[in-house]
Amino acid sequence: MNINRRLFNQLLLFSTGALFLRRLGAQTQLRINDARLLAHIKTLAEFGRNPQGGVSRVAYSDFDRQGREYAQGLMKAAQLETSIDAAGNIIGRRAGNNSLPPVLLGSHIDSVPEGGNYDGVVGSLGAIEVAQTLAENNLKLNHPLEVIIFQNEEGGLIGSRALDGELTEKELDLVSRSGKTIREGIKFIGGDPTKLATVKRNKGEIAAYLELHIEQGGTLEAEGINIGVVEGIVGINWWDVTIEGFANHAGTTAMNNRQDALLAGAKFIEAVNRIVTSVPGRQVGTVGRIQAWPGAPNVIPGKVILSLELRDLDAAKIQMLYEKIYAEARQIGVSSKTKFDFKEINVNIPAPTDPRVRSLIAEAASELQLSTKLMPSGAGHDAQDMARVCPVGMIFVPSVGGISHSPREFSKPADIANGANVLLHTLLKLDSKN
Amino acid sequence: MNINRRLFNQLLLFSTGALFLRRLGAQTQLRINDARLLAHIKTLAEFGRNPQGGVSRVAYSDFDRQGREYAQGLMKAAQLETSIDAAGNIIGRRAGNNSLPPVLLGSHIDSVPEGGNYDGVVGSLGAIEVAQTLAENNLKLNHPLEVIIFQNEEGGLIGSRALDGELTEKELDLVSRSGKTIREGIKFIGGDPTKLATVKRNKGEIAAYLELHIEQGGTLEAEGINIGVVEGIVGINWWDVTIEGFANHAGTTAMNNRQDALLAGAKFIEAVNRIVTSVPGRQVGTVGRIQAWPGAPNVIPGKVILSLELRDLDAAKIQMLYEKIYAEARQIGVSSKTKFDFKEINVNIPAPTDPRVRSLIAEAASELQLSTKLMPSGAGHDAQDMARVCPVGMIFVPSVGGISHSPREFSKPADIANGANVLLHTLLKLDSKN
Repeated sequence: MNINRRLFNQLLLFSTGALFLRRLGAQTQLRINDARLLAHIKTLAEFGRNPQGGVSRVAYSDFDRQGREYAQGLMKAAQLETSIDAAGNIIGRRAGNNSLPPVLLGSHIDSVPEGGNYDGVVGSLGAIEVAQTLAENNLKLNHPLEVIIFQNEEGGLIGSRALDGELTEKELDLVSRSGKTIREGIKFIGGDPTKLATVKRNKGEIAAYLELHIEQGGTLEAEGINIGVVEGIVGINWWDVTIEGFANHAGTTAMNNRQDALLAGAKFIEAVNRIVTSVPGRQVGTVGRIQAWPGAPNVIPGKVILSLELRDLDAAKIQMLYEKIYAEARQIGVSSKTKFDFKEINVNIPAPTDPRVRSLIAEAASELQLSTKLMPSGAGHDAQDMARVCPVGMIFVPSVGGISHSPREFSKPADIANGANVLLHTLLKLDSKN
Repeated sequence: MNINRRLFNQLLLFSTGALFLRRLGAQTQLRINDARLLAHIKTLAEFGRNPQGGVSRVAYSDFDRQGREYAQGLMKAAQLETSIDAAGNIIGRRAGNNSLPPVLLGSHIDSVPEGGNYDGVVGSLGAIEVAQTLAENNLKLNHPLEVIIFQNEEGGLIGSRALDGELTEKELDLVSRSGKTIREGIKFIGGDPTKLATVKRNKGEIAAYLELHIEQGGTLEAEGINIGVVEGIVGINWWDVTIEGFANHAGTTAMNNRQDALLAGAKFIEAVNRIVTSVPGRQVGTVGRIQAWPGAPNVIPGKVILSLELRDLDAAKIQMLYEKIYAEARQIGVSSKTKFDFKEINVNIPAPTDPRVRSLIAEAASELQLSTKLMPSGAGHDAQDMARVCPVGMIFVPSVGGISHSPREFSKPADIANGANVLLHTLLKLDSKN
């Protein structure tokens, strides 16, 4: 009996182990359905499609609402229990051990005007595809799973900023690109702006957040790498710089008697480029907007306003570059008899991803025989807000030519499939190890 | 008898000579009424006066029409026979020996939006003041005198271009700053756009044209000189320069992977300034207008359009500077992976003044104990069109601080009086020597 009992126990242990190993083997072999995912991406591209390619599916537009309805349908097909939170984010939930906090997978499906078909979409539909793969394989996770499609990412990360409690009452009255205020937009997509407080999640309430996204830069493609493991989302500092000179007649004012605000602005733009590229690293600096007054060919510009944007993973580096630029602007001001004034418009602090999640992404990619590169995200993402609430990870796939926010935005089918499989396996690793 | 006859003749000669000398003496002592002229300038400033100072009396506006009615009243008080030609120019005529061609004195009274009280006004009311001084002193000139107030100088020298036959039918449909087309504007101020051909004057039909004007630059004031003798009106060449780069994400596009059209534009603006100031002379070069697309702080500008304006008395020098700028733009294009395209928008060829008229102005100023400086006019004036039809002369008086096209435009009463007296005496010299 004793022996039999031991034998029985050993047999039981062996068969359980075999089952475990078999299941583990099945899980390792698990792949998303790439043809289905690509078909979904293609169909979503119909909502707001532009004649010249790409989409205009700005948040709170009719096309946005249609695209959201389509995505909710996909969630239901993936056996997710869908709901819209008070901020208008779409959530699709798959049950797990409800005493554990959920793992979230997500991104967005709104676009910039005349945007592309991949930014946000790959991560959103990729997350739904992961859920559908789990459902088809009857794979029950320990953690509940939430697939989340954040609303209005392109117009200021509105949905994810509601989730981390940052979205202010005042912002609700800002007019979005759709023409609606954010408050009106939230109602339009089925949210309830009076109940935003219910959306906020606190630390400990989410096990982890994973976001798959296109790189939007050209590094992965240029270096022939499959997967970018994002080390963090860069900090973004934006100033408006006003240069005051003196507007005067372009014919009667001698060259040495001018206070030309545009000439000073030109020297400033050149200085920004020189200073930002004078130190090693992946920091970027951009003057993207400029206006000169009065703006006539025959009048020396008396006033210029331009934007200055600096991005880096390291806030101290941004500060150091800003100080150099500021000092040089003062010199330009003195030599050109103009006056520079800097006004800070917006600061996004750098958002590092979670080191443990990063290694799980790298591990999942490696097991899928995919090459990886640790890299910053130069673009802002919903993940940066989620990083204030929970550990986050981001998975990048190559963008052809590094082109984004453009009808020419493109990522290859194989790369998209790779990304979704890495998302799936990172999720499985996270779930089993938490 | 013979002796008596000779004596008589000698006496006659003596008394005629005395009369001539007395009259000459009286003419030399002749001065305009500066208090009256300044009062007229002050009153005209009421039509279109802005709360912050200066006027907005754009051509074809109600204020323009009111100002014109006021000026016609002044002409009548100066015993001028007034009429409005088909182009809408106001002409006040004082008879002379009608077999001689008339001498014209003139300028304009329309202003730029938010302009000053002196540009055009000093010359227009100064010319009327000269006519009134002649009338009060019963001075009959050999030549008929025409005081002419050209319409819409600020909107493209419309009135004077009708006089030299340059104004085209097509231009009549352009919308002026008043909101009216030029055709509508001409009707509004009492002209007849169907009869513009009657306005054209041919070579030989005008003895000379004199224009008194504020300098609009700071040279005379800075050098403490009373009168500028204008050697010519500079040529003005205006190009629009389009720079094509590639718009891309300001966060994800590495610094060395950009095709930043605004950075290329900044280098271009700096190059224009450097090239224009690299050779001696009074040439000027200006980039007054700039626009960058898409114009967002977080997007690298893919396209820039800016204006390039070059002015000099010597058309060959303008060409030489343009070629240097063009060559450097091509280099900037290569190094920044952008493409420069130049489109010529407008060319005004330089208009030299008449050397003989110039010396008469200098002579008149010298007899009035006023210092003079030979100088170009960097601004365009009706005189440049008149130079195609007859010998022209221009008299400049100092502008305080060189400020023009601004509510802060100012010329001192004494300088205005000096200018009007030089105008008067140049006229007398011209009249007696022609």
